[in-house]
Amino acid sequence: MTAKDPLVIFTPSGKRGRFPLGTPVLTAARQLGVDLDSVCGGRGICSKCQITPAFGDFPKHGVTVSDTALSEWNSVEQRYQDKRGLKAGRRLGCQATVQGDVVIDVPPESQVHRQVVRKAASARVIEMDPATRLYYVEVQEPDMHEPTGDLERLRKALKSQWDIDDVTADFPILRRLQPVLRKGNWSVTVALWKGDDRPPRITALWPGLHEGGLFGLAIDLGSTTIAAHLTNLETGEVTASSGIMNPQIRFGEDLMSRVSYAMMNPGGDLEMTRAVREALNTLAVEIAKDAEIDPSLIVEAVFVCNPVMHHLLLGIDPVELGQAPFALATSNAVAMNAANLDLAALPASAQVYVLPCIAGHVGADAAAVALSEEPGKSEDLALIVDVGTNAEILLGDKTRVLACSSPTGPAFEGAQISSGQRAAPGAIEAIRIDPVSKDARFRVIGCDKWSDEDGFWEETAQTGITGICGSGIIEAVAEMRLAGLLDPKGLIGSAEQTGTERCTPEGRTHAYLIHDGTAEGGPRITVTQGDIRAIQLAKSALYAGARLLMDERGVDKVDRVVLAGAFGAHISPLHAMVLGMIPDVPLDKVTSAGNAAGTGARIALCNVGARREIERVVREITKVETAIEPRFQEHFVNANAIPHATDPFPELHSIATLPDVSFNTGGGEGGGRRRRRG
Amino acid sequence: MTAKDPLVIFTPSGKRGRFPLGTPVLTAARQLGVDLDSVCGGRGICSKCQITPAFGDFPKHGVTVSDTALSEWNSVEQRYQDKRGLKAGRRLGCQATVQGDVVIDVPPESQVHRQVVRKAASARVIEMDPATRLYYVEVQEPDMHEPTGDLERLRKALKSQWDIDDVTADFPILRRLQPVLRKGNWSVTVALWKGDDRPPRITALWPGLHEGGLFGLAIDLGSTTIAAHLTNLETGEVTASSGIMNPQIRFGEDLMSRVSYAMMNPGGDLEMTRAVREALNTLAVEIAKDAEIDPSLIVEAVFVCNPVMHHLLLGIDPVELGQAPFALATSNAVAMNAANLDLAALPASAQVYVLPCIAGHVGADAAAVALSEEPGKSEDLALIVDVGTNAEILLGDKTRVLACSSPTGPAFEGAQISSGQRAAPGAIEAIRIDPVSKDARFRVIGCDKWSDEDGFWEETAQTGITGICGSGIIEAVAEMRLAGLLDPKGLIGSAEQTGTERCTPEGRTHAYLIHDGTAEGGPRITVTQGDIRAIQLAKSALYAGARLLMDERGVDKVDRVVLAGAFGAHISPLHAMVLGMIPDVPLDKVTSAGNAAGTGARIALCNVGARREIERVVREITKVETAIEPRFQEHFVNANAIPHATDPFPELHSIATLPDVSFNTGGGEGGGRRRRRG
Repeated sequence: MTAKDPLVIFTPSGKRGRFPLGTPVLTAARQLGVDLDSVCGGRGICSKCQITPAFGDFPKHGVTVSDTALSEWNSVEQRYQDKRGLKAGRRLGCQATVQGDVVIDVPPESQVHRQVVRKAASARVIEMDPATRLYYVEVQEPDMHEPTGDLERLRKALKSQWDIDDVTADFPILRRLQPVLRKGNWSVTVALWKGDDRPPRITALWPGLHEGGLFGLAIDLGSTTIAAHLTNLETGEVTASSGIMNPQIRFGEDLMSRVSYAMMNPGGDLEMTRAVREALNTLAVEIAKDAEIDPSLIVEAVFVCNPVMHHLLLGIDPVELGQAPFALATSNAVAMNAANLDLAALPASAQVYVLPCIAGHVGADAAAVALSEEPGKSEDLALIVDVGTNAEILLGDKTRVLACSSPTGPAFEGAQISSGQRAAPGAIEAIRIDPVSKDARFRVIGCDKWSDEDGFWEETAQTGITGICGSGIIEAVAEMRLAGLLDPKGLIGSAEQTGTERCTPEGRTHAYLIHDGTAEGGPRITVTQGDIRAIQLAKSALYAGARLLMDERGVDKVDRVVLAGAFGAHISPLHAMVLGMIPDVPLDKVTSAGNAAGTGARIALCNVGARREIERVVREITKVETAIEPRFQEHFVNANAIPHATDPFPELHSIATLPDVSFNTGGGEGGGRRRRRG
Repeated sequence: MTAKDPLVIFTPSGKRGRFPLGTPVLTAARQLGVDLDSVCGGRGICSKCQITPAFGDFPKHGVTVSDTALSEWNSVEQRYQDKRGLKAGRRLGCQATVQGDVVIDVPPESQVHRQVVRKAASARVIEMDPATRLYYVEVQEPDMHEPTGDLERLRKALKSQWDIDDVTADFPILRRLQPVLRKGNWSVTVALWKGDDRPPRITALWPGLHEGGLFGLAIDLGSTTIAAHLTNLETGEVTASSGIMNPQIRFGEDLMSRVSYAMMNPGGDLEMTRAVREALNTLAVEIAKDAEIDPSLIVEAVFVCNPVMHHLLLGIDPVELGQAPFALATSNAVAMNAANLDLAALPASAQVYVLPCIAGHVGADAAAVALSEEPGKSEDLALIVDVGTNAEILLGDKTRVLACSSPTGPAFEGAQISSGQRAAPGAIEAIRIDPVSKDARFRVIGCDKWSDEDGFWEETAQTGITGICGSGIIEAVAEMRLAGLLDPKGLIGSAEQTGTERCTPEGRTHAYLIHDGTAEGGPRITVTQGDIRAIQLAKSALYAGARLLMDERGVDKVDRVVLAGAFGAHISPLHAMVLGMIPDVPLDKVTSAGNAAGTGARIALCNVGARREIERVVREITKVETAIEPRFQEHFVNANAIPHATDPFPELHSIATLPDVSFNTGGGEGGGRRRRRG
């Protein structure tokens, strides 16, 4: 290129260079390192390299672009226009050639590394850089005088047409190679996986130019539910989302009972492995059906899960995770073929990636939260709590990140609560107790109205009021404390002590009546002293974990709190703070990250660099083991009370301080029992 | 080390260096690059590093070795001596330390790269350098404060104790890792495979020090039979050999009928794949039983086979190999886990290597012959013929090697011959016809005597005389020609023409009676005109292939001939030359290489460098496709006759020239029918 050659300026990158007359725009983009997509390698058949030339004066760039700055619209473009249509002003970058100074815009959909904006406002943007990409190649036909194999000629084509070396292919691909090459008349589109430093691997192939898309699954494999997002690997869009119950529940509700099952029953671990893999196959088939795609287009899957699920997914006995020192069989990220996991619903050569585990109790799900929420990049000190049956807790900023897990138990998910239920239509999810009348109003899942609003009863007639879910019980306990129905130790007062007939005796203790549906054949929904104790244990464990990390970090307050987990999205930060689940921070410093673990899985699915990032980050995280830390016990016991002296949200209540009540009966109800792990 | 430090001289390598007082002999050997084995890394438990110090004057080396040149016999050595015994004069290299100038001999069994001498005198020596070796390591126990996985700590131990990086492990290993580490109290022996440029891979592991040996299978997967050699990967010894029929025979006797079966029956290729894999499992179980080893000790398998068997083994439809241009799905060497081939008898993580194919008709078996016989290193021009249902033919010397295959058909294996049978007890394997009496004497498999020797009939009474095998029919035809029973065109004369009642009419032609066993209830064994024709077709195809390579090379004679193949070992070179199977060379220039393909498999099993060598060599071989070469047809037709004018082995016969007879009857029997491929 010389100073007389036309100047080509690409936007939005601003990259520029001079190119000889007649240079295709795609070639110029390639040479400048401009992010312009192409699957067919410039043959004018894939239309991925669409660009928009701009004409006129560009003082900012110091050029004037004439109408003839690009070659004329050609027959290839016309054919594509007739067949599929091009947006106004668009050209094919491989067909339009440079004829004069020109400014060329690369629209987002033509960028390989396009950015995918997530819904949550606080969240990071995902930049597309998936491990798998499509390449169209034309392969030399076989020849008796040069008798190399079809695979070797395909490799040669990938080298000469895309400069990609050392490509490998597994047997399922090798088996399909010969018929596909012949069906495509020696042209083929290959899905090439370059997920780590191993040689690139062909994971799928189609005759001719493949235009059916390319998909991946981001899977959050929880103890209770398995959630999957089917993601378009070219655009980053979530095409479909679906969930399924983890069938391992029949072997034990929580993780430790599943580990016990494996310990007590020879082969029990493999039984659980089979169960979860079957469920994953069902889920994959369902989600592909929902999205109306062929499952053979799913070429990748990324998993996040806790350590026990991690081992059970991989077919490793989790028994060591049930006893100190909680040794993982492997902590690093794991990559393999779908066939290795018996995921028969996916192509056998689909590539699976499982995020690394942080420690024996802090799994790939916590790593995924770290990837999504990036505490290590935070300027201020962030506490990130992923609330579930186990709580994963991360504390950190740019200087250092700490992590632990805390055995909160299933109370936060509505389990082990007298009127508790899973979050489903009919479940009370929010509650307010009038501090004067001590009456409760509430909202149930499936209806936007409060129970004291017009139409509530009509709208909930079908579902009924069936119970109280995790977020509902947290609000109920906090509201009871605010309304003076609970003393700081968590004791429910009698009708006499509280001045409401809603407090009724129940054995040696009392219960508070939220709603009596017996007249309509529904349940009587109360909060019992046992429920209060269960929530106190759970919140103490959560708080103690957070405090332990703060001790390690040498701080007694944090700058902000992020509530993550499917459940985190529904917890009222206000009530969580009244309850003492989380350390005190200004209300506007509590945010919800939604299903941050699932988001982390999506990020790792869409961006191979993010995999390397989280593999590096987990090594730098300081792991704190709650099970062996005496201060954890200390914090746990100290956190049992609900001692807030000041109402943190006076705008919602008529009182400025929490009531100074005490319902001690002299009985044994003052102390909390310690729930033990396992 | 300084000039004052003791001088340590190792034999037989002659490597020498000075080392500080107290340096263990193993350490000195390592630093000098002396080939001294150690599995335990110098901990005094594996006893692989045994050495023999020599004392006294060594004028050749310029040293005198005193009795105190090595440290005293220590307790570790005593313990080993008490437990297992050491040969007289032996020391453990990791325990004995240098105390003065010393000459140390490393006996062959202490060398990693020891040489294995093969039985065949002409054959290359195999130098041991297997892909898999044992390493003993002590792994750090897990610790809650440093919660890495067990695999990661094992990797760290391999790095720190053996300087081996980036070790990987498949799921079957990962699943066993935790119990094995605990059973071995955190010491473990791993079998580490370093077969190519991929990261080293753990393929087996045992608690503590493993002393049960390490084995590999070298498998010659033929169309008709599958032969395996169980080889000790530490010593190179063949521990057991076993064979089994290829069960694919039920789908077709020859390769092209199997390809046809796959073409005509959807899924037929997979049916054949399952059949051969099942047979391989049976064979692996049997051979391990023969050798009294646990099959879990078989950590590698190397396969050689023709292209059709290659595809059927790998689960690839061989249909393209049945039609021009005979395209292989892949021609390169293939490496994989045993589990990928459903070889359930082997550990799932055992490593399989399949030699590269040379061309669509010249397979990994021919590559193995090239590896074993090394035509590319020959000073003189060698013709190597691997005789089987297809003949693989290699012609070359240091300057250039050519290869082709020729469709000889099954006649050389006794099939399609009227009295033909497989080589088994009772089969005639050698025959001589008296040129005067025209009577035949013969030898059968299972008896060393000739039929005219005393005791022959008693010794063969049990088996009987059941038929004639491949080598027998070749000798019979050649002897008939020598005895004047056949004319140069291959016509059998009548009793009148030949002067013997053994020539009897059979339709319009004649047959020669070798042996009439009907009186004892046995068969009447004759050579019919059809048999002569079948052998003529087979030998013409073989000869035409060899001639075609000679044409390509521009020569009309070769310096030597190597007959390979299980059958090659039994062909009489003399008769082969009379028959015109091979070009004329001096008799002492015809050698047998035995099962050269199987030997090639063993070499690749024992020496990983040999795999790289053959992968390079096959690319340099000039492939000649007989199916499309008009000159092949020409040579084929011209080779039909048996025109030898001079008896090449007068010492065995009383005549100096072949009889000038002609039995033309004027009928249509003069020309050969052309057998066509497929």
